[in-house]
Amino acid sequence: MAEIPNHHDYNTTSERRRIQEDVPYLALDIGGSLIKLVYFSRREQSPEEEDNANLIKTLESTSHPVHGGWLHLVKFETREINQCLDFIKFNQLHSSQVGPQQKGIAAKVKVTGSGAHKFADLFMEKIGVTVEKKDEMDCLAVGANFLLKVFQHEAFTFIEGKKESVDIDENDLFPYLLVNIGSGVSIHKVTGDGDSEAVDGTRIGGIACWGLGRLLTKCKSFNEIVELSKYGNLKGIDLFVEDTFGDQKYVEKNAPPDMNIGSFGKAISENRTLEDCKAEDISLSLLEMISQNIGQIASLNARIYGIKRIFFGGSFIKDNTCALETLSSSVHYQTNGAAKAIFLRHEGFVGALGALMSYGNKHGLLIKDESQNVETTLKSTHEL
Amino acid sequence: MAEIPNHHDYNTTSERRRIQEDVPYLALDIGGSLIKLVYFSRREQSPEEEDNANLIKTLESTSHPVHGGWLHLVKFETREINQCLDFIKFNQLHSSQVGPQQKGIAAKVKVTGSGAHKFADLFMEKIGVTVEKKDEMDCLAVGANFLLKVFQHEAFTFIEGKKESVDIDENDLFPYLLVNIGSGVSIHKVTGDGDSEAVDGTRIGGIACWGLGRLLTKCKSFNEIVELSKYGNLKGIDLFVEDTFGDQKYVEKNAPPDMNIGSFGKAISENRTLEDCKAEDISLSLLEMISQNIGQIASLNARIYGIKRIFFGGSFIKDNTCALETLSSSVHYQTNGAAKAIFLRHEGFVGALGALMSYGNKHGLLIKDESQNVETTLKSTHEL
Repeated sequence: MAEIPNHHDYNTTSERRRIQEDVPYLALDIGGSLIKLVYFSRREQSPEEEDNANLIKTLESTSHPVHGGWLHLVKFETREINQCLDFIKFNQLHSSQVGPQQKGIAAKVKVTGSGAHKFADLFMEKIGVTVEKKDEMDCLAVGANFLLKVFQHEAFTFIEGKKESVDIDENDLFPYLLVNIGSGVSIHKVTGDGDSEAVDGTRIGGIACWGLGRLLTKCKSFNEIVELSKYGNLKGIDLFVEDTFGDQKYVEKNAPPDMNIGSFGKAISENRTLEDCKAEDISLSLLEMISQNIGQIASLNARIYGIKRIFFGGSFIKDNTCALETLSSSVHYQTNGAAKAIFLRHEGFVGALGALMSYGNKHGLLIKDESQNVETTLKSTHEL
Repeated sequence: MAEIPNHHDYNTTSERRRIQEDVPYLALDIGGSLIKLVYFSRREQSPEEEDNANLIKTLESTSHPVHGGWLHLVKFETREINQCLDFIKFNQLHSSQVGPQQKGIAAKVKVTGSGAHKFADLFMEKIGVTVEKKDEMDCLAVGANFLLKVFQHEAFTFIEGKKESVDIDENDLFPYLLVNIGSGVSIHKVTGDGDSEAVDGTRIGGIACWGLGRLLTKCKSFNEIVELSKYGNLKGIDLFVEDTFGDQKYVEKNAPPDMNIGSFGKAISENRTLEDCKAEDISLSLLEMISQNIGQIASLNARIYGIKRIFFGGSFIKDNTCALETLSSSVHYQTNGAAKAIFLRHEGFVGALGALMSYGNKHGLLIKDESQNVETTLKSTHEL
């Protein structure tokens, strides 16, 4: 654990004033495995502050200029919740809802995800903050609408190994299906601003993948599984048509020889033990199997609701070439080309941004620049 | 491998005559992991024959009286294909298509499943038989129609741990969804005799379960995984609402505390290695996760096609309490009670019986008793 400065280092009167003038807005999405923290502030971090902040162990940290300020996106592992609390304290983010006139009243912070419930007491105890719980399902749809309307080049397709930006026409966005792949998978039918419904989901998502992957490969993190998978070969562990039918002539005529017909099938056909298998092949097979399944369930829902665009978010797809490729081909195959898989660049922060948007109406935030139509639309319709 | 009698023991002229008079009809479904062999003969085995047949290692062997004869259902592991060939040879089943006048012409046997292609040469080489390949998808629907119309009490539901027979009204059978869970899973929309379409499927079926199970538990067979699962506890390895939300009051109000939200999730939340997990919990978690997923995909298809009865077959569900229970509850939950999961007692033999039915029209078989309407119906509509 990185050492962080003592309380008195930043708790001076002048520093307080500076922070009060800035009033950053903070929201979190605390999931089963990851914490996604987002905050909006009107000023950029100074290099000195950045250095200090770097002392805290984050999984990921980026800043983006948005209308009149900066949006900061930070990730932690849920089991490192104390690092996250230190980060909030160190950056004085928990003062966000306390104006100078409100001293003595506990600050409130918007939190979504299952951890909003689990860690509410810890937030009060460690940083004196009240957690305002936000419904996860609502936050996801709001966050996706925000990303698709505010960030240029937010959406992309992944075809033949290449990312390609998709232009989003705000007036032709709805309806779409949002598939958020985090620890679990939730599927939302989004039909307008503030108009969405969680219609399906599956338990075979990130946590099942990481759980199985950990037991099978000893990888210590989900990212490790994703990285390892890049060196894997499905033919080393899965069963393909060419392995099974044997009759080469038949295969050529009737079935693609490289069609995968059994994840982990070679464990059986070749009498393998775990020691006989390569960890990189196992990682790839797990990711492929789970992505294929999510693509299939999403596609079936798209068919039921007559929807043509499926947006995928959630940390599962981050830097996960196998997932991007498999989800794309699965949706194409399952819907006969009628629906398209599209991915969100800020995939992991959908829920947290939705929670952040809930400051919108009460405080006249998030994004002050009134000349932006986008913001106005979001503000007028998104009361969480 | 059991020793079987020498060729000359049963290859006498009188024995030949007996077999030729009987003319058993033989069909096989050779899948990725199991061989399902079915034959129809007009006489029961003598105790002596039965003893001899018992020398051959079968996984399962039952006989059923049907109109004017006996239907024999036998199972082998695909990797024990030589046992299966010995069984055919020993019982002289391969003479089925050779009448006395056809000496010198190689017998033909109807075979479905991927092994029909893979092992065709082996059949010729070892027992001098030509394999007549039958389309697997067609055979499954035909076999299910046969079972549902010919066998009384073939169908049952599984509710609160109890099997309950479902009466099938022949005139109100269609449409239904057939979900065959073998190595892979195929889903068929069956709208009439001889009228069916393979509409979906998933690769996460028996082979993925057995493959993962083998790597994780060292179980040597799929049955071992099923048996082990009966001593397992999902709470030992999966993540439940009560583990995740922490806030007991919230949970009681908003979510069932015993709702499973992450298969293998405790591997992560409790930093487990494979050695820290019980093989019986892993077996149960795998079966439950995979059954739940199949139930979900089947239900989504039922919704797409507006179908209310989903029949499940395939060896995966055999003696598999977890699968029966989970498929039932999954279908109920996913379709809001609109569709029902129903199971086939002869679950593993659906495809093989379909292949057997294809003898029907050419030879005036399978079932000779002309007083049976069922048979007439099947014969008139099922030309494979």
